[in-house]
Formats: sequence, C-alpha cells, structure tokens
Amino acid sequence: MHEESIKRAGEIIAQNTGADSHCTLALIDDDGYPTASTITASKSDGIKWITFGSEVGSNKANRIRKCNRAAVCFNRSGDHNITLVGTIEIVTDADVKRDMWYSGLENHFAGHDDPNFCVLRFTTKRYNLFVDWKDEVSGEL
Amino acid sequence: MHEESIKRAGEIIAQNTGADSHCTLALIDDDGYPTASTITASKSDGIKWITFGSEVGSNKANRIRKCNRAAVCFNRSGDHNITLVGTIEIVTDADVKRDMWYSGLENHFAGHDDPNFCVLRFTTKRYNLFVDWKDEVSGEL
Repeated sequence: MHEESIKRAGEIIAQNTGADSHCTLALIDDDGYPTASTITASKSDGIKWITFGSEVGSNKANRIRKCNRAAVCFNRSGDHNITLVGTIEIVTDADVKRDMWYSGLENHFAGHDDPNFCVLRFTTKRYNLFVDWKDEVSGEL
Repeated sequence: MHEESIKRAGEIIAQNTGADSHCTLALIDDDGYPTASTITASKSDGIKWITFGSEVGSNKANRIRKCNRAAVCFNRSGDHNITLVGTIEIVTDADVKRDMWYSGLENHFAGHDDPNFCVLRFTTKRYNLFVDWKDEVSGEL
C-alpha cells in the first residue's frame, strides 16, 4: 500500500521538475515562523530527495543557513497532496551545480558555474501522501 | 505599487476559495519542522485573513494548538506567488462555523454544527507577493 503510493508520488514529483513546473517549499524564518513559497524543482529521486536552483543570497538560502528544516508540497493539479518533511542544505560543488542545471535557469544566471547560483538539496525524513484517490499514507524514510 | 499588488493578490485569493480550490498551508510540527500541505480556503478578506474548514482532531488542528505560527501560499496557476505569514487559531463558535461553511464540506461533516467541524482562521502579519508579473513586493500588515 505504502510502496505503491510512494512509487506513484515519485513519478508525480519527477513529472513536476524542470522549467515551467512548480511546487511549494516551506522553511522557517528568522522569527520562527514557517514560510511557504513557490519554487521550481530541478531533479528528484523518487520521494527521497529533491533539488532546486537558487541564488546564493536569496531569502531561501539565507533562511536555510540558519535553520535546515524544510517541507516540500506538490499539489499543482489539486487531485493529490504530496507532503515531504526533512532537511535542506546549500550545495555549491561545481559538479552538482552542473548536474542540477535545467533549461530556464539561464534567465536568472550566467550559467551553471555562476558564483551566484547554488543548489538547494532537500532530503526527506517523513512523508504524507495522498495520490490517485487512494488512502492517505504517512511514514518515515 | 504595494497597494496594487495587495489588491490583486486579494482578488486571486478570493477566486481560489470554496469547493474545488486549494492552496498550501504551512505549520510547525511537534519536532519543530515546517510542514506544508494542501487545504481548501473557505473565505477571505483581501490578504488580511483567510479561513479554512478542518476536523477538530486533524493533524493541522493538533499542530495549531501547540504552535499558532503559520504561512499560506497560493500558486496554483504558476504565474503568481502569494506568500502570507502570520498566526492561525481554531474557532468553534457556532456563528463563525455557519458563516465559513462552503459547499463540498458536506462530504466530510454532517453540517456546520457538526462538533467535529472547526474553522481555522489565519491572520496575516507579513506578505510577499508576485502577481501579474510586477516586481515582487513584501511588507507587514
């Protein structure tokens, strides 16, 4: 039951990565409030991890430096809810930046080696999934 | 500039309330992690406040009892981002429950006076708005 929903959620996430896709990233701000804002996912591996592109000096990156707890929600079409809770880190490794580059980022950065470009890498600890109108499932990875 | 974006954001929120609409609500869980999940907004007043229907014993209501900090994100169509950060409270007043009832809730509750039905009332403290491809604006209410 869980495995089927996890597999399907991974497919939905994969379909919602790259240019013109979006999901919602929740972080914690300086005052201890949750924030939730739109972001484009770059790559993913099932529900295990998701990467995003960001600016080194963005609000998101600044918040992550102070608190690495995060949640990601995919619900674009309204017939599913994918909630992933976990941790997020800023990656500036050149190879990772190249691997996680996607078409569309050139509107914001000079290229994958732009020093202002960084990768946000989210790793799931806990999931809550409602997909294909099956029963909601939740658990830990 | 801000006023125009605030007005437009309020219209977008109002268009995305009631049956078949959804947005994302971020809360803080027992372990201090942000969570982000799909919810339907019931009513709204500009960007000032938004109400939701929920179960008295839902994960969301249980989290709110322990931590009243929340964020709401509207980004359904992908061409806008509305992030509101503030506080959220559980309301069980009979008049409020009747006022905030919307078509569709009858699939989950016996009626607006169902003791399992409660209203979650979010009040905005801070906003970050990107609408109609205008410059992003942020501020406090």
